Amino acid sequence: MQQFGVIGLSVMGKNLALNVRNHGFSVSGYSIDRSEIDAFAKYKDDKLKPTYSWKEFVDSLEKPRKILIQIMAGKPVDETLQKLLLLLDKGDILIDGGNSNFHDTNRRYHEMEKHGIHFIGMGVSGGEEGALHGPALMPGGDEDAYNEVAPILRAIAAKTPDGRPCVSYIGPEGSGHYVKMVHNGIEYAIMQEFAEIYDILRKVAGKTDDEMSDIFANWDIHLVHSYLTEITSKVLKKKDTLTPDHVIDHILNVASYKGTGNWMLEDGVSLGAPISVVAEAVIARFMSKATTREGKSVVWNGEVPADLVDNLEKSLQLAQAVSYAQGFQQLGMAADAYNWDLRYTAIAQNWEAGCIIRSSMLKDIENAYMDGGKFKKLKNLFQDPYFKDLLNKNIHSLRAIIKISTDAGIPTPTLSASLNYLESIFNPTLPANLIQGQRDYFGAHTYHRNDRVGVCHTEWYEEK
Amino acid sequence: MQQFGVIGLSVMGKNLALNVRNHGFSVSGYSIDRSEIDAFAKYKDDKLKPTYSWKEFVDSLEKPRKILIQIMAGKPVDETLQKLLLLLDKGDILIDGGNSNFHDTNRRYHEMEKHGIHFIGMGVSGGEEGALHGPALMPGGDEDAYNEVAPILRAIAAKTPDGRPCVSYIGPEGSGHYVKMVHNGIEYAIMQEFAEIYDILRKVAGKTDDEMSDIFANWDIHLVHSYLTEITSKVLKKKDTLTPDHVIDHILNVASYKGTGNWMLEDGVSLGAPISVVAEAVIARFMSKATTREGKSVVWNGEVPADLVDNLEKSLQLAQAVSYAQGFQQLGMAADAYNWDLRYTAIAQNWEAGCIIRSSMLKDIENAYMDGGKFKKLKNLFQDPYFKDLLNKNIHSLRAIIKISTDAGIPTPTLSASLNYLESIFNPTLPANLIQGQRDYFGAHTYHRNDRVGVCHTEWYEEK
Repeated sequence: MQQFGVIGLSVMGKNLALNVRNHGFSVSGYSIDRSEIDAFAKYKDDKLKPTYSWKEFVDSLEKPRKILIQIMAGKPVDETLQKLLLLLDKGDILIDGGNSNFHDTNRRYHEMEKHGIHFIGMGVSGGEEGALHGPALMPGGDEDAYNEVAPILRAIAAKTPDGRPCVSYIGPEGSGHYVKMVHNGIEYAIMQEFAEIYDILRKVAGKTDDEMSDIFANWDIHLVHSYLTEITSKVLKKKDTLTPDHVIDHILNVASYKGTGNWMLEDGVSLGAPISVVAEAVIARFMSKATTREGKSVVWNGEVPADLVDNLEKSLQLAQAVSYAQGFQQLGMAADAYNWDLRYTAIAQNWEAGCIIRSSMLKDIENAYMDGGKFKKLKNLFQDPYFKDLLNKNIHSLRAIIKISTDAGIPTPTLSASLNYLESIFNPTLPANLIQGQRDYFGAHTYHRNDRVGVCHTEWYEEK
Repeated sequence: MQQFGVIGLSVMGKNLALNVRNHGFSVSGYSIDRSEIDAFAKYKDDKLKPTYSWKEFVDSLEKPRKILIQIMAGKPVDETLQKLLLLLDKGDILIDGGNSNFHDTNRRYHEMEKHGIHFIGMGVSGGEEGALHGPALMPGGDEDAYNEVAPILRAIAAKTPDGRPCVSYIGPEGSGHYVKMVHNGIEYAIMQEFAEIYDILRKVAGKTDDEMSDIFANWDIHLVHSYLTEITSKVLKKKDTLTPDHVIDHILNVASYKGTGNWMLEDGVSLGAPISVVAEAVIARFMSKATTREGKSVVWNGEVPADLVDNLEKSLQLAQAVSYAQGFQQLGMAADAYNWDLRYTAIAQNWEAGCIIRSSMLKDIENAYMDGGKFKKLKNLFQDPYFKDLLNKNIHSLRAIIKISTDAGIPTPTLSASLNYLESIFNPTLPANLIQGQRDYFGAHTYHRNDRVGVCHTEWYEEK
């Protein structure tokens, strides 16, 4: 009998199955696509078993069965659950490793619960390479069921630089997929920050692709040690195969998206989460398609400040921190709204390796949420002394970058939003009193006062 | 028999009914709240008839019946439709004048169509005063049915400065409520722009409330002639009744919202509309609640440039144009996505008076979409020569304001987003090529090239 089963054997499912096998666990694989099974069967050995029907697959697994569903999100997941329900026994454990919307996972969790089946919605990040060599895993659902599969998940997961697995229990219901959604929103945000920094490096600092590649490589061993820094350096270095140029200069500047960043924005709006950088990053992708392209490209004839590259590095470091801060802020609001006991330190740990947004800063975030052995509650990541200090050290650089970009005519939607966020989060005198005054004027919407309690309305005019 | 009926007699319904009566049409009113009927009955005369049951109300109306439903959006509307279906005849016309979500209106339109009832979803703006003296009306649905009620709607609507009614047919299905939703999103955006300008006036220019009131009054007869300018001046002038101060200084700076601006953002995200200013305005309201307030208020010790107030006026004028531009851009994308033949010139005209976002600039927008007698298609409002010229004339002022706010540490989320939008809409070299390179690197998501057609993928690394 096999210890683990995987349904869906395209590159992610196949690589995760191989990863399980490579860590000494026996695994069965099944797919509704026969060609996927045949490709999988090439890896067949005493620990890896291709199966050719739902029944053969289910019957091959020891009880309680532990099954990873790694297929396209949406209707196929529901269809798979209906097939499995006919064959499973009470106490079996299903793991949805796809990019499912957390609303769907909430629903499926409760539906499966009625049948006595444990359902775990698990975010998986790291792409195909991560799936094979160590992904970041974000499992949510029933904690006892998680503990049953934890030995396997801990074995296959990426390991943090200090050797801990990038998987631990996130929280109930669809919280695992929620955390993956927030991961992806942060990913959109940080990627757009890189794009803006790149735009300033090439257009204001006048750097070549190779020079920029070296700059990012340098930052990767200095202030912005992250996977995205590393690959940005590599992307900029790569030569084209069709022209003598670098490939970056022949990639069309229209950004695509699958939408999980958009989901974070949608739920953030419903929660009232101030996730401006994520919003600007999502919208910057829209803008890359919406621009008419009829204008001229920026040519900077002004001075290039000696500290420009240094300020860009510090701005990127601080803006990256803002992206994480907004993500954790939304997680906090989701935890309150959905009554989820989320483990922020575990989430930071899960992201420290294997996933796209991994960076050394996540260890600082893990520390920020720890207070000795206890969990510390933060309304905002920048309340933590380490991040408050980072803010104070780097905000002048970010301001300098905003000003020179403004002079040059280079759009900086996420860098601007990062600065505006930092200028707002502790601000006692935001000007929303004017909005409340206007609303009460034109719609009698009432307001609160700052010097006494209760709901107020002003008779602004007499001509009633 | 009465010519028009109104269901729901709280302040909006009552005032709209009185408006209809004041224009010479006979009107019946009904409410499920007996106290509302009693209040309405005080206005009873030969043209205004309170009724006390669904049947009495419906029987009092001439056929085809023309009924305005002016109640809380959501379930109450569906309940009202169920009641009315039992009593109406084919060909009768229902108008939902509440703030219904356009998805609901789409559904109701088609449900009522099955019963032979014409359903018009109509956005109404102008608050209680507008309802009585002339609201802006945005009716969508069946055009023939609109033409039946048009004489009454044209009579009660606000009139543009050149005397045309602020009502005309918008388009099919829920497009009327969609346009109202976009109106409200633009309203959020422009109100936040005012708040940021106010924040700079008080904190950098050091102006008193009375001085600011005079400045806005001056702008209202100069570059920013709008209802919001007028009321901002009046709000800033108003003295408190409980203290010797101005009331603005005692209004709590936490902005409330009912959510229609959020709806615009949600649908904009689903359409891929680059509505960054609306997003920042929605999120600024969230931030006004989320701020920890533990920081210090800005004290500006730097120089106050002689042209600061002038630059603020020009920035507000340009930022206002960006808010409208984003709204019309989303309308264009909605028209394509939902297969609606929207009349942009009519929409601009409908907003020229009566509604919250009315301003002299809407006449310029109406002109921008007209080409002789024909309708001109714009991908972006700033493609129109008048607005392109405004951009060129005012963008230097907006840049100056962003730079001094950056120095002062004053957050300017919507002003920054306005500038970034203007720097992007014609930009041929946005840096999204880096995002596409990163996506292809970590997820094999592929990309397009800028020098040949087809889908490309680069083998970025060899260790596979």
